[in-house]
Amino acid sequence: MTRGIRDDRPDIMTLMIQPVILCGGAGTRLWPESRGTRAKQFLPLTGTQSLFRQTVERTPAGTDFLPPIVLCGDGHVATVRDQMDTSEASLLVEPMPRNTAAAIALAVASADADTLLLVMPSDHVIADVRAFHAAIAKGARLAQQDWLVTFGITPDRPETGFGYIAGGEPLGEDGFAVDRFIEKPPLADAEAMLATGGYSWNAGIFLFRAARMRDAMLTHCRPIFEAADRAVAAGMRDGDALYADALQFERAPSDSIDYAVMEKDDRVAVVPASMGWSDLGSWHTVHALGQKDADANVVTGDAFVHDSRGNLVRAGDKRVSVIGMENVAVIVDGDDILVMPLDRAQDVRLAAKARE
Amino acid sequence: MTRGIRDDRPDIMTLMIQPVILCGGAGTRLWPESRGTRAKQFLPLTGTQSLFRQTVERTPAGTDFLPPIVLCGDGHVATVRDQMDTSEASLLVEPMPRNTAAAIALAVASADADTLLLVMPSDHVIADVRAFHAAIAKGARLAQQDWLVTFGITPDRPETGFGYIAGGEPLGEDGFAVDRFIEKPPLADAEAMLATGGYSWNAGIFLFRAARMRDAMLTHCRPIFEAADRAVAAGMRDGDALYADALQFERAPSDSIDYAVMEKDDRVAVVPASMGWSDLGSWHTVHALGQKDADANVVTGDAFVHDSRGNLVRAGDKRVSVIGMENVAVIVDGDDILVMPLDRAQDVRLAAKARE
Repeated sequence: MTRGIRDDRPDIMTLMIQPVILCGGAGTRLWPESRGTRAKQFLPLTGTQSLFRQTVERTPAGTDFLPPIVLCGDGHVATVRDQMDTSEASLLVEPMPRNTAAAIALAVASADADTLLLVMPSDHVIADVRAFHAAIAKGARLAQQDWLVTFGITPDRPETGFGYIAGGEPLGEDGFAVDRFIEKPPLADAEAMLATGGYSWNAGIFLFRAARMRDAMLTHCRPIFEAADRAVAAGMRDGDALYADALQFERAPSDSIDYAVMEKDDRVAVVPASMGWSDLGSWHTVHALGQKDADANVVTGDAFVHDSRGNLVRAGDKRVSVIGMENVAVIVDGDDILVMPLDRAQDVRLAAKARE
Repeated sequence: MTRGIRDDRPDIMTLMIQPVILCGGAGTRLWPESRGTRAKQFLPLTGTQSLFRQTVERTPAGTDFLPPIVLCGDGHVATVRDQMDTSEASLLVEPMPRNTAAAIALAVASADADTLLLVMPSDHVIADVRAFHAAIAKGARLAQQDWLVTFGITPDRPETGFGYIAGGEPLGEDGFAVDRFIEKPPLADAEAMLATGGYSWNAGIFLFRAARMRDAMLTHCRPIFEAADRAVAAGMRDGDALYADALQFERAPSDSIDYAVMEKDDRVAVVPASMGWSDLGSWHTVHALGQKDADANVVTGDAFVHDSRGNLVRAGDKRVSVIGMENVAVIVDGDDILVMPLDRAQDVRLAAKARE
């Protein structure tokens, strides 16, 4: 097995890809394990490796990929260094959170003009890495033609928690011009899109030439790019890390890359990708993707589970005994214990808010 | 309000009652809180006082009751001293558990012949102390006529977890001669007894003259009494406590007072008592007797309970968050966390066995 992204059409790829891994954001949807500086992406939610570590290994430095740029907040630097060999990476440290547009602008400002930047969240699962690499190869061809490329996940359910992308004109065999972006839809709209076809979920993975994105930002969200550009120029280097200048960076308006650029630009492409993607956005999803025992329980840690089906039990450093339960989550983290039905997983924010 | 037991018929009572409180046994039905030396009777399962402490206060030393004899194992002495003023009590320490017959024999062997001994488990709830005292007054009259007296709880459900007592010939207004004891019955039998009437639950509370019980034991279970008698004679006094001699006591066969004496004797009386009795034998019962919030949740400790009904949540020294759950127990004790439906409360032994 090879993971080389050139396998698909080796004669077309001419540049190595620069991975950009976004580690900002904490998220409370997986509370209590995800909180404070111990964000979701640094937790081993599937198997033994953290989602961040899995993301790093998905684009290994070598013949296809350059060593990654890791964008993270000050509070996450130690964890990043703990979970990867940062001598093989560049850290770009955000002095404060300013959402994805400003974070990506930092990477763009510090990259050479012709570099192809592959921007990836660090807290997603991609089960089929070969399919991911094949999609990147397609996206790279489009990016070299100055498309801003996004990757679209084919929906398998009428999910209301994601944004959707409507594909338009085909771009050879590599993808489609984006017709429009659709914000998180009501259920009826989600069902209609699922039935109609031609829509995909916006997975928040992007590929583009650095100069192309810089120009797009200067057109669509100039204050964001300029603040980031100055923050890089005035930044302080500390070994493997560049700390963006706080006084400059805090001037950047906080906006998502979708709102600030992608929805406004007229040359955006989507590359459909069926690659076992999940945002692992709730305990329900962690259970769905987890390794199940004969009774469909997903169990980690010291747990005694008897006459129980379909539960997610994460015992942390405690000892959990579950008898006669079905389809519930029992999540232990430190001194916090969360118990709820898995189909109420979206309500975990209530507990996180009450507790933190 | 007076709690005096002489209120009922003050002209008949001539002797003060000697309470004997049985603290042996640990029990795993309320695991994980009840385990090892931290037995159920020493836990504050209803309100802030332990069941043991409530038992002590139910027969306060004074005009009606002598200071109690507390029977306990070596491992419980410290807890007993911690929970009561033992200068107002005598401790009788069992060197090893030998069931209730031998424990009661220790008390009988150390008591004067004409003393009326009131033997009580330390892990029950009696909500109506006035009714309890009235029943004791009736029982005392029968005990002075050399009846071995047991107290019977009028059943309000076809409980299969208790032994039953069939009442026979009335003994004035004080009680009935016991016709026979019935072991824990199948459900059909329990339902039949409930429908027929004249049956009561065996609550394990007894009242008798010391010499009468000594004679009964010498008749029905001589080896038990002789071992206990020698263990007291060879015992070692340490302040408020008498440590029964281990070499002698271990010779006592292990048997319950019901099997060893009560079921064999032909002069046993039952005094019916409606006194809000519960053996608090499961987490289900702890919930049933607990103080409920508007959603019928019984909660102790640091718990966030949202959109949930009918649960028992005991957070221990941890922080428990419960969302969208119904009729479950979440019990935290140290590093152990138990989650199960309240109607599966009898299965807690499975977890206790797996864990301890």
